[in-house]
Amino acid sequence: MTKLKESPLFWPASLKGGVMSVLDETQVPKNLHYIKIKTLKGAVNVIHNMKTRAFGQFLVVLYTFLMELEKVKVSKKTDFRSQEKVLNKIKKIAHDLNKSRPTFPFSEVTGIIVRWAVMAIDSGLDIKTFVKKNTEGYLESIRAKRLGRVQHIAEVIQDGDCILTHCNVSGELAMAANICLKEKKDIHVFATETRPYFQGAKLTCWELSEMGVKVTLVADNAVGSLMSDGLVNKVIVGSDRSCANGDFANKIGTYQIAVVAEHFGVPMYVLTQPSDKIRSGRDIPIEIRKADELLKFEGKKVFRGKVDGFYPGFDVVPYALITKTIPIGVNENE
Amino acid sequence: MTKLKESPLFWPASLKGGVMSVLDETQVPKNLHYIKIKTLKGAVNVIHNMKTRAFGQFLVVLYTFLMELEKVKVSKKTDFRSQEKVLNKIKKIAHDLNKSRPTFPFSEVTGIIVRWAVMAIDSGLDIKTFVKKNTEGYLESIRAKRLGRVQHIAEVIQDGDCILTHCNVSGELAMAANICLKEKKDIHVFATETRPYFQGAKLTCWELSEMGVKVTLVADNAVGSLMSDGLVNKVIVGSDRSCANGDFANKIGTYQIAVVAEHFGVPMYVLTQPSDKIRSGRDIPIEIRKADELLKFEGKKVFRGKVDGFYPGFDVVPYALITKTIPIGVNENE
Repeated sequence: MTKLKESPLFWPASLKGGVMSVLDETQVPKNLHYIKIKTLKGAVNVIHNMKTRAFGQFLVVLYTFLMELEKVKVSKKTDFRSQEKVLNKIKKIAHDLNKSRPTFPFSEVTGIIVRWAVMAIDSGLDIKTFVKKNTEGYLESIRAKRLGRVQHIAEVIQDGDCILTHCNVSGELAMAANICLKEKKDIHVFATETRPYFQGAKLTCWELSEMGVKVTLVADNAVGSLMSDGLVNKVIVGSDRSCANGDFANKIGTYQIAVVAEHFGVPMYVLTQPSDKIRSGRDIPIEIRKADELLKFEGKKVFRGKVDGFYPGFDVVPYALITKTIPIGVNENE
Repeated sequence: MTKLKESPLFWPASLKGGVMSVLDETQVPKNLHYIKIKTLKGAVNVIHNMKTRAFGQFLVVLYTFLMELEKVKVSKKTDFRSQEKVLNKIKKIAHDLNKSRPTFPFSEVTGIIVRWAVMAIDSGLDIKTFVKKNTEGYLESIRAKRLGRVQHIAEVIQDGDCILTHCNVSGELAMAANICLKEKKDIHVFATETRPYFQGAKLTCWELSEMGVKVTLVADNAVGSLMSDGLVNKVIVGSDRSCANGDFANKIGTYQIAVVAEHFGVPMYVLTQPSDKIRSGRDIPIEIRKADELLKFEGKKVFRGKVDGFYPGFDVVPYALITKTIPIGVNENE
């Protein structure tokens, strides 16, 4: 395997000495600033205000448990009351994190932690130690699986490909593209701006160009034009949530890209996190964010008058429109 | 017919005492500022820099002839040399205007004026007077036809309609919507932002809300989401150029709206200016504008790094995707 160059968006958080550091993605690429988080409330805010997103918020969710568990003082390790105290603390963390952004399957991750806690109590194990070890192991396995998927994406990308991507897939596409460059594949990426947050412009363009990949920014409006002119031959996007039937939620705009890609016969690849927890796309709650995020740009109101705005943060793409999924944790040879 | 309230975008230019005034659409809705134009060069600049667009630039093209003709001093009305001088002047105006924006069919309009000039010479008429009278008559007929189309659009819009529109159709939709309100039709318009110039947000939202119409701004990304959720039941867009076979060019993003509308079975209505001058969409030259217009916002560079941009100003929609055209100058009862 070619040596992997890592994007700062691939693992945008860390935990040291009970303090979490999270890359403030709203400041990228102007500044590579890491926000320090010491409390559960701080973690919820950083997710809700979209300072971190996609994989970053999963890291924040998991690190929050590790960080908060460190703070819990218990009188005696195997004491029932102490164990109950830790369990309640874990449930409180899970509850607060779950409601920070409705579309995300935080409950699937926080549910795992709660189950570990219950399992520890049932087995008479020290709950803090058990949950901590398991969470650390879980994080390591996710890291290995994501690195495996990066390799898988690199294999999907062929010499001469012109790839359209939308929003940002947390370093995986950039790292895969970097592998392709080392393998002498000639590739070009078109990144959509991804209004209103400009994740495509601010994050994707930046990390791809840092990785030495030829990248061109286009308006979200340009997808039909690019495809009708034959300028892209592949679409690769991520997913914020996947369903048992293969439907997936991703940044608003993904649905129309999928429809247009199907119309022009351009294959669409989706990085998924398969899950049986949610049956179909119809069951995914869609977060409706504040109209102000659409009406303002960098804090300043762009348009005068009595304009109202509607900003669903995500849309749900039916499985039928997807050419191939690249799921996490599945070996490409399986 | 209900009394018509006129949008400032419906007829955004005027000519008085040899000086043209053009609404600076880049300042709308912050300011209703009119730029004064005294020269051919000024007219070309105002079009090239998109201070005016769509119907505004047609007005500028026609008024430029009237304005420049006023300046031409001729020694004797029917003198051959004088007539030749005026003809050359007209050809020069036509040439300069034609190249100001490649996608627009200015040559179709300027060609008419040149033909009038040649016709005047052949008939021994005073060229200045003949061209001036004809141009004024032509403008009056366009005005009448556009007012007729406003009425036609109002008839297409039904009580309860939720209409998606893109970019801006120079007052016609807003005026039609205003008629609908007077007829007690309950309607709602979703306007796309229309990146990178935000014409939807700045112009369409503004003129619709000024007309008392319920309007909601959405990201260009939200079209698939709106349609999959059944929130729009009709699309109405304009066209910057129409072909003999029914294909049409319009603001970038229109093609993908048409594809998505077809996918969801939402009917798409297009305001056209039918023409036999260009055979099919393939023959329409597409203006590629500067990447900076995408990379900068209100003059300020938004994203650091070595990001390149690609900004085709228009896309060409095949006739097959259109449900119904609403051409200018065609009576709805025909």
